[in-house]
Amino acid sequence: MKLDELVERTRSQMPSRRWEHTQGVRQSAVELARRYGGDPERADLAALLHDYCKYWPVEQQLETYRRLSLPDEVLDYDPQLLHGPLAAEIARSELGVDVPEVLDAIRYHTSGRAGMTLLDKIVCLADYIEPGRDFPEVARMRELAVVSLDESLLAGFDSTIQFLLNKGKKIYPLTLQARNALLDELKRNRQDRS
Amino acid sequence: MKLDELVERTRSQMPSRRWEHTQGVRQSAVELARRYGGDPERADLAALLHDYCKYWPVEQQLETYRRLSLPDEVLDYDPQLLHGPLAAEIARSELGVDVPEVLDAIRYHTSGRAGMTLLDKIVCLADYIEPGRDFPEVARMRELAVVSLDESLLAGFDSTIQFLLNKGKKIYPLTLQARNALLDELKRNRQDRS
Repeated sequence: MKLDELVERTRSQMPSRRWEHTQGVRQSAVELARRYGGDPERADLAALLHDYCKYWPVEQQLETYRRLSLPDEVLDYDPQLLHGPLAAEIARSELGVDVPEVLDAIRYHTSGRAGMTLLDKIVCLADYIEPGRDFPEVARMRELAVVSLDESLLAGFDSTIQFLLNKGKKIYPLTLQARNALLDELKRNRQDRS
Repeated sequence: MKLDELVERTRSQMPSRRWEHTQGVRQSAVELARRYGGDPERADLAALLHDYCKYWPVEQQLETYRRLSLPDEVLDYDPQLLHGPLAAEIARSELGVDVPEVLDAIRYHTSGRAGMTLLDKIVCLADYIEPGRDFPEVARMRELAVVSLDESLLAGFDSTIQFLLNKGKKIYPLTLQARNALLDELKRNRQDRS
């Protein structure tokens, strides 16, 4: 499917306010890709599709998730976590996206995972800091994003874990693994520099 | 090995100030066992041995841990996490403790784990709230411990995760799993009561 067709298909899946968010994530993802040596076209494509299923009714998300036999584990957590793996699978099976790196960046954009690729990080961070976002830590994350992709993303995971801790909600293991792996990466990079 | 012999052996592994902590954990564990229908003798035994290796030099802990071929995964985290699995293995192989429930409560007293047994919870919580402890959340945890083992332990895991988050340190996955499982248990119990 061509990009302009994918754009129209994606736009039709969500209310216009949410489409603005998607456009913001595309813009931020492309900027981050340029800044950190990623592929801007892949970043744009993953960002375009990342929330493809997010505004479907939860019942439809759950029903589709089960029909596609996607991994069960996530069903024990917040339904918010369904839309990433779901969008990746729809992108692959219905929209003709066949680049594993793009599909993974879509799949893990909400949760993160241990050992994130550059594109995973770009899309996940763009989703936190796109121009329409407004939450307490976002200003600091935007500042950090200019100098360190990893430090900025770490601040994002910290804010997510803090939010869930404060709310007495379960924390998804992949998010913890993503944070632990980022801390290891940052430590290794500091050691390499010294 | 008889209890008084175990007491002497354990006392000889640590400085006297730390022996006082162990005595405090024994007292709290026995109280919690009586309150929540656990086995006070097993609670006492697990509490007695829980820090058996904690005051060995870290190099000795690491060397022994590797020599006993204990699970590798923990080596990627804070060395503080070694002494539970280590004490369980020493209790089994050198001190003649052969009750799996007691060995597990020793093994998981620092980290917790998904699906903790009653004895796991008692020893882990006693270690947080024994009379010698003094940290910001301990007063609230002691109050909660009178009415709900699970709520009090949850507050303990929350405080541990918060501490590691604030310090920019890795969070051990078992601790997260323990917290997630406790949240599920509390939810089920509330549903059963309603």
